[in-house]
Amino acid sequence: MAASEESLRKALAEKQSAVEAHGNAVRALKAAKASKPEIDAAIEALNSLKLEKSSIEKQLQAAVSGSDGDGALSREAFRQAAVNTLERRLFYIPSFKIYRGVAGLYDYGPPGCAVKSNVLAFWRQHFVLEENMLEVDCPCVTPEVVLKASGHVDKFTDLMVKDEKTGTCYRADHLLKDFCNEKLQKDLTISAEKAAELKHVLATLDDLSAEELGAKIKEYGITAPDTKNPLSDPYPFNLMFQTSIGPSGLSPGYMRPETAQGIFVNFKDLYYYNGNKLPFAAAQIGQAFRNEISPRQGLLRVREFTLAEIEHFVDPEDKSHPKYSEVVDLEFLMFPRGEQMSGQSAKKIRLGDAVSKGTVNNETLGYFIGRVYLFLTRLGIDKDRLRFRQHLANEMAHYAADCWDAEIECSYGWIECVGIADRSAYDLRAHSEHHVKNVFDEGQREGNIDFIGTNLDKSGVPLVAAEKFSEPREVEKLVIAPVKKELGLAFKGSQKNVVEALEAMNEKEALEMKAALESKGEVEFYVCTLGKNVPIKKNMVSISKEKKKEHQRVFTPSVIEPSFGIGRIIYCLFEHSFYTRPSKAGDEQLNVFRFPPLVAPIKCTVFPLVQNQQYEDVAKVISKSLTTAGISHKIDITGTSIGKRYARTDELGVPFAITVDSTKDVTIRERDSKLQVRVSVEEAALVVKSVTDGLRTWEDVWEKYPHHTSGSADD
Amino acid sequence: MAASEESLRKALAEKQSAVEAHGNAVRALKAAKASKPEIDAAIEALNSLKLEKSSIEKQLQAAVSGSDGDGALSREAFRQAAVNTLERRLFYIPSFKIYRGVAGLYDYGPPGCAVKSNVLAFWRQHFVLEENMLEVDCPCVTPEVVLKASGHVDKFTDLMVKDEKTGTCYRADHLLKDFCNEKLQKDLTISAEKAAELKHVLATLDDLSAEELGAKIKEYGITAPDTKNPLSDPYPFNLMFQTSIGPSGLSPGYMRPETAQGIFVNFKDLYYYNGNKLPFAAAQIGQAFRNEISPRQGLLRVREFTLAEIEHFVDPEDKSHPKYSEVVDLEFLMFPRGEQMSGQSAKKIRLGDAVSKGTVNNETLGYFIGRVYLFLTRLGIDKDRLRFRQHLANEMAHYAADCWDAEIECSYGWIECVGIADRSAYDLRAHSEHHVKNVFDEGQREGNIDFIGTNLDKSGVPLVAAEKFSEPREVEKLVIAPVKKELGLAFKGSQKNVVEALEAMNEKEALEMKAALESKGEVEFYVCTLGKNVPIKKNMVSISKEKKKEHQRVFTPSVIEPSFGIGRIIYCLFEHSFYTRPSKAGDEQLNVFRFPPLVAPIKCTVFPLVQNQQYEDVAKVISKSLTTAGISHKIDITGTSIGKRYARTDELGVPFAITVDSTKDVTIRERDSKLQVRVSVEEAALVVKSVTDGLRTWEDVWEKYPHHTSGSADD
Repeated sequence: MAASEESLRKALAEKQSAVEAHGNAVRALKAAKASKPEIDAAIEALNSLKLEKSSIEKQLQAAVSGSDGDGALSREAFRQAAVNTLERRLFYIPSFKIYRGVAGLYDYGPPGCAVKSNVLAFWRQHFVLEENMLEVDCPCVTPEVVLKASGHVDKFTDLMVKDEKTGTCYRADHLLKDFCNEKLQKDLTISAEKAAELKHVLATLDDLSAEELGAKIKEYGITAPDTKNPLSDPYPFNLMFQTSIGPSGLSPGYMRPETAQGIFVNFKDLYYYNGNKLPFAAAQIGQAFRNEISPRQGLLRVREFTLAEIEHFVDPEDKSHPKYSEVVDLEFLMFPRGEQMSGQSAKKIRLGDAVSKGTVNNETLGYFIGRVYLFLTRLGIDKDRLRFRQHLANEMAHYAADCWDAEIECSYGWIECVGIADRSAYDLRAHSEHHVKNVFDEGQREGNIDFIGTNLDKSGVPLVAAEKFSEPREVEKLVIAPVKKELGLAFKGSQKNVVEALEAMNEKEALEMKAALESKGEVEFYVCTLGKNVPIKKNMVSISKEKKKEHQRVFTPSVIEPSFGIGRIIYCLFEHSFYTRPSKAGDEQLNVFRFPPLVAPIKCTVFPLVQNQQYEDVAKVISKSLTTAGISHKIDITGTSIGKRYARTDELGVPFAITVDSTKDVTIRERDSKLQVRVSVEEAALVVKSVTDGLRTWEDVWEKYPHHTSGSADD
Repeated sequence: MAASEESLRKALAEKQSAVEAHGNAVRALKAAKASKPEIDAAIEALNSLKLEKSSIEKQLQAAVSGSDGDGALSREAFRQAAVNTLERRLFYIPSFKIYRGVAGLYDYGPPGCAVKSNVLAFWRQHFVLEENMLEVDCPCVTPEVVLKASGHVDKFTDLMVKDEKTGTCYRADHLLKDFCNEKLQKDLTISAEKAAELKHVLATLDDLSAEELGAKIKEYGITAPDTKNPLSDPYPFNLMFQTSIGPSGLSPGYMRPETAQGIFVNFKDLYYYNGNKLPFAAAQIGQAFRNEISPRQGLLRVREFTLAEIEHFVDPEDKSHPKYSEVVDLEFLMFPRGEQMSGQSAKKIRLGDAVSKGTVNNETLGYFIGRVYLFLTRLGIDKDRLRFRQHLANEMAHYAADCWDAEIECSYGWIECVGIADRSAYDLRAHSEHHVKNVFDEGQREGNIDFIGTNLDKSGVPLVAAEKFSEPREVEKLVIAPVKKELGLAFKGSQKNVVEALEAMNEKEALEMKAALESKGEVEFYVCTLGKNVPIKKNMVSISKEKKKEHQRVFTPSVIEPSFGIGRIIYCLFEHSFYTRPSKAGDEQLNVFRFPPLVAPIKCTVFPLVQNQQYEDVAKVISKSLTTAGISHKIDITGTSIGKRYARTDELGVPFAITVDSTKDVTIRERDSKLQVRVSVEEAALVVKSVTDGLRTWEDVWEKYPHHTSGSADD
């Protein structure tokens, strides 16, 4: 808890006691019929105490609701204004609205859809093309076996509670979180100790088991928000949409919860496609699905969303990156684990320093953090409201080497929009193991064990890479050689099972058996396919360490995964781009989206100044050259005033407007500065194209062309 | 049945009888110990008859398997070669292969994914941008109510039969179709009558009811193909993937079977967005799902696929199109209903003639047929294997005004890849009616009936458009005015139901009541909300026709829907682009895809001729300028021979290869002609860009730059 807040709570509690004590004193004086001056003085002191208490309350209120006391309120108002504009102009709309909609499902209308496809096109340019990534496109419908291996069938759950009377479902952690936040922000009378406890609950919310969550809900007397009915105990609800593949009803499937698995299961083919060379990255853009228990926060928590994921496969022994030097000098807000634990805030750090000091685990992870920073800021995300937050130990999966989230601040707070994780070898191993389970285990697939038997023929699909040595290297390898003749005599029909089990021993087991056989001559050995122990004698198996020449090193690659929630990025971009400004007459606030041309849904509008055939013809000529230049645009020939038409186009975030006010020259207006230049009809499309393509800036244009100064055009 | 085939079958049957008769005659001669010359002559005659029979058999075989007898075989071989290359180079691969895959699900690997995103980008350019369409992006997860209204919950089914012992499922029509085709092609002994019957079954397959299909399966003794077990009766299987939305399990949902519904339910907002003006088109690209009973034919029949759909909304009274003149002179293969019924084949028709003769229902439908033709041929679809086939009456939904499929011929036959339908007002009405069911019916929403009552307040969301008149028009309208006082006295608490029922009458009902009241003074009137007849007297309602001024005409727009199966188009494109040519040494066949630059997965490869640092540096410089120019490319610095590298790149359909063989000039080679020009290092990227962007042709380049004639480069 911040020191100031804690001391304020204490001061408030003290002041409250003082007010009560003084109140009693005043009442006592009155009861004792004390003199009027005496009573008046006491009352004055009481009032001044009350004023002091009220001042502390205000400070505390400010402290709990952020730096400015009105922050929450103004954030809410800002969001309302932005969301109203977004929905009115069909950037997005609740899906199936005429049927009253479905929570957590949204449509992108025409301008939103255009923004989305611009964001995705830039993503493809910035990541896939620039880095020569292997893009794939896999189905959403996924058979159970794949998601069983990845762990989603068993672990992709949220804890849910039910209203015991109506059956309405809630996310258990949300109810507890809401309760704590509400209490902290609205109830100023709670003690500093209680406040500290609630804050601890909030900080450890993600770690609570179903039992612990249930106990807290009971302890705090939390009830169903809508009905105040009692709640059930929390229980896990799997967030995948389940379905059935084919007509038999016997093949369960799910709508994928992420696109990554489609890449992992194709690792072998992609590695081959890449000439059996590491590192390489595969990428996928596509829909993913989460059957949220009770979606809220608009576009930020939805049941279906577009993910763009990269899986960069790298040798775990060499996580350097050839292009690392291109991002090493970038400096931006980072929020390492240490700073979070010690209650500090995010600070500007040079990426190169974060990597060299080991704050960021390795170069490749650092490289992608830098590339993500460039991607987001070029889209128009405000760099002062973007931070890279490192996962705390309790947030990170046990196998992860390091993990950073690109968080963007919007009216809902800091929102995780991109996760950048070094997931080590976890995912590839999960599929290898699930696939070849019971055939051979980890140690054998990758360690120093050779096979004399025939197990390798049955190996299924180990998802591994190999480093070919330029010169063969001498390594010591364990060799397990079952003596089939002796085993056959001893075990007859079960010989095969015993041979396989012997070959399946890992290094530790084999060396223990070797030692035992040498000392005792016979050991009991558990054969899982027989479900029992069998006696193994010294003459039945030879176990030895041999020096061998190796031509390659076989290993499971590490995977570094930047995963982008496209809808969340777009929503934050909407908020960061939105502002209002007064109309020229000053009688209303006009809405503007300051989208960079790269993401603007339409790059340009074309307006004939007045409705006449000549101007309309010129507008059509310009429109045709814009189409040829590949610039999306719109002609507006309505008779509305030019000011109204500008306002309409600003509200869609269109960066340029061409007003046709003669048949030779036209006026180009820039959205944010409202500055206007005069350009010939022939040049108009090319000027707009050069700026939207980033070949020159509006400032260049402003310098080169004559300015339009007539007041007739704007507002 | 084709005349030749029919006469051949008859000839064969006659010849068969003749052979049998002659055989008997020979045996009789022998039994009667006839003279040797006599017997020999009879045997000779028999042999000659047998030869004639065998010749007829061959002709018949050729007739039933297409124009050339070896066609099927060579098509199969061609497909194998193409598919092997496609799968080996990861254009596409069976999904979840390491888990043995799932029928009907495919991944696009890197080159396939690039082709797909090029096709979609061109689709967006050719349709959405060029026509200023409103693109939207709606979720795949769809609540039941929407698909109930659209008819999919009740009617989106295929008839299925089950192996009665193993439970394996089959599509009933596929089994019957396979049986008929097999019989017709392989059994030459069936009579001409039987052959005609089987052909009739094939032609009417889509019209057969479950009972009729079941009867045919029984009659022909069709059993399960794998086990020969008996089959169940056919029953409908809904092809939608079902799921459940939210945690309660009470909200059924489906994965959308098409993207169109997302547009229809948003009609009102989109119409408003378009300034309440018609015509306009909305478009959507996205995944759609069909839980096929037994998918086959690779990419052509899959369980998840990308659709690109356009819904063009138009005034049913004016289906002209402003840009119709741009396509009117196109001439291509069309296959109107009449030609199909009379057994002719598709023929080249000028689009303008097809529209003006009424073969194509209207200008807008014609416009889209022309635009689809341009789209497909620019992608690289062979115009001689592309036809527009009109739906027969029995294929078309009852509400459709006209429907044409763009069919592309590939090794599987003619495949429907784009459907272009005038669906009249069906879809918008379906959602309006489902939504406002029981509030008011068809006649009232659109007809000439005014409302005195209050029903309009409850109208929900009628999906209609309005044509504002420049001058108010005088129209005769029916006015139903219930006299509430009298009705209240007569029906007390039920007054409201009776008033609503009276107001809900359509014009015909109202005029009948008016006549009856005038002649009889009282009528029995059924009030559905009361479930009974009530007596209506003359003083309870006034029904009259009045002249009124109208300011607008309200109507449900017609929708013209071009719907593109992107995966099918891509597969056909693969086949149309694939060819083989001998290597220079002539010892092997090399595979080539002749993709136009527009769709080629990579536009250019860069090869240093030999492995040396200087050349590699030049290659990197060129690579950088290609990246700047936005040209996707790949550097290949492997030590393989340049011929092998060309072969590898041809197999991916890369149109251009830049070979670095000096530090000043490089060689650019075109894939199909294998011609090479010399270009400076600085110009190389721009030359490639100008051709891939379509600003000039390879012929232009060939004319302008010096030719490379050294034999060292190719093969």
